[in-house]
Amino acid sequence: NIIVAIEQYFSSPSPLLKGKKVLVTAGPTREKIDPVRFFTNRSTGKMGYAIAETAAEFGAEVTLVSGPTNLPSPPNVETIHIESAQEMYEEVIKRFPHVDIVIKSAAVADYRPKHVFHEKMKKQPGDLIIEMERTIDILKTLGEQKTTQFLVGFAAETEHVEEYARKKLQSKNLDMIVANNVSQEGAGFAGDTNIVTIFKRNGSVMTLPLLPKKKVAEEILKEIVGAMK
Amino acid sequence: NIIVAIEQYFSSPSPLLKGKKVLVTAGPTREKIDPVRFFTNRSTGKMGYAIAETAAEFGAEVTLVSGPTNLPSPPNVETIHIESAQEMYEEVIKRFPHVDIVIKSAAVADYRPKHVFHEKMKKQPGDLIIEMERTIDILKTLGEQKTTQFLVGFAAETEHVEEYARKKLQSKNLDMIVANNVSQEGAGFAGDTNIVTIFKRNGSVMTLPLLPKKKVAEEILKEIVGAMK
Repeated sequence: NIIVAIEQYFSSPSPLLKGKKVLVTAGPTREKIDPVRFFTNRSTGKMGYAIAETAAEFGAEVTLVSGPTNLPSPPNVETIHIESAQEMYEEVIKRFPHVDIVIKSAAVADYRPKHVFHEKMKKQPGDLIIEMERTIDILKTLGEQKTTQFLVGFAAETEHVEEYARKKLQSKNLDMIVANNVSQEGAGFAGDTNIVTIFKRNGSVMTLPLLPKKKVAEEILKEIVGAMK
Repeated sequence: NIIVAIEQYFSSPSPLLKGKKVLVTAGPTREKIDPVRFFTNRSTGKMGYAIAETAAEFGAEVTLVSGPTNLPSPPNVETIHIESAQEMYEEVIKRFPHVDIVIKSAAVADYRPKHVFHEKMKKQPGDLIIEMERTIDILKTLGEQKTTQFLVGFAAETEHVEEYARKKLQSKNLDMIVANNVSQEGAGFAGDTNIVTIFKRNGSVMTLPLLPKKKVAEEILKEIVGAMK
């Protein structure tokens, strides 16, 4: 029995996040034009789901707020399904005061159509102008409201990745940002691997090689644990 | 051996479409705004994939041109993957002269952004205007070019379903149109069932009850076989 216990201790992931409440966001949002058409983006939720799953394995109490994906809810994670940026905002903001760590890996729409048609829009000859308005900047709002929470953002870019990431870390008052170049082979959306660079508030930078998203999730969470000590 | 042959004959679907070349389209299209963001719609491809699969079971030589879906390619079907309305047009138009039946169940975008950004668009304060232009009307083009092909369209509407369907049958020079109200419970996108009405060029109308999409596919194909006789 003692041998079994020792084996379990060494084989199961260490409870690095025991007692911590972790909120993870994942996936894209959908911004409706009409009942059929919408704006969205290429996020598949894989990175965020891997983080939520790993955080639960690390002993945390995990809530995952997810846009539309085709992924099953990770084991031992409370998963909340939303569609729009506004719904994402509402689900995140009400949980924010009660959590220790927030990891915002969702690709939330910056803009939504100003006018949503209640019936399917009929096409007309000629061009169409769609007026878009800004959605609420969730990450910025969290950065303004945060007290003791450790706040982690993501930057998915196609150019100037480091510059944009460092700027976002500052302007959104984050503790850490995970940046990747989504146009790079092996990185970004849809695939099972990622290549990320982790920037911390103290100026430290860690570049990880091409890794499975599950491994990237472990590294991100270990960095968070280290930075919170 | 003769018993096995008889059993096979009665258990396998009848080769109603033996010798026929069938082209099916399915799924949504994606119209890029930048490398990350795009316009799309709620089509999941389920209806079209069910039609392609059933047509192959009915003995046809089937090609499926599909937008992005999460469905596996149906057995014994040549599946071509595309993203945009323009790519869909190109793959369909070059195959059109060589097929007997075309079933256009894809939800092809009517509009696409006039300008596609090569790098991820950075958000700005304030509103955003997106100028959209019409895509090529594939179904209309096929209706104009058709010689001996049997051409079937779909009408996914949220109101005035019958009126729009009859109008589309005429204006696009179709032989048959399958109409459904996508806002109806049990019908339309994402689900595994559908409620459709089939309008034929000769004026006949057949309304089917709520059925699994696979059953709807069988009924549609049987109606096509009947109408081609």
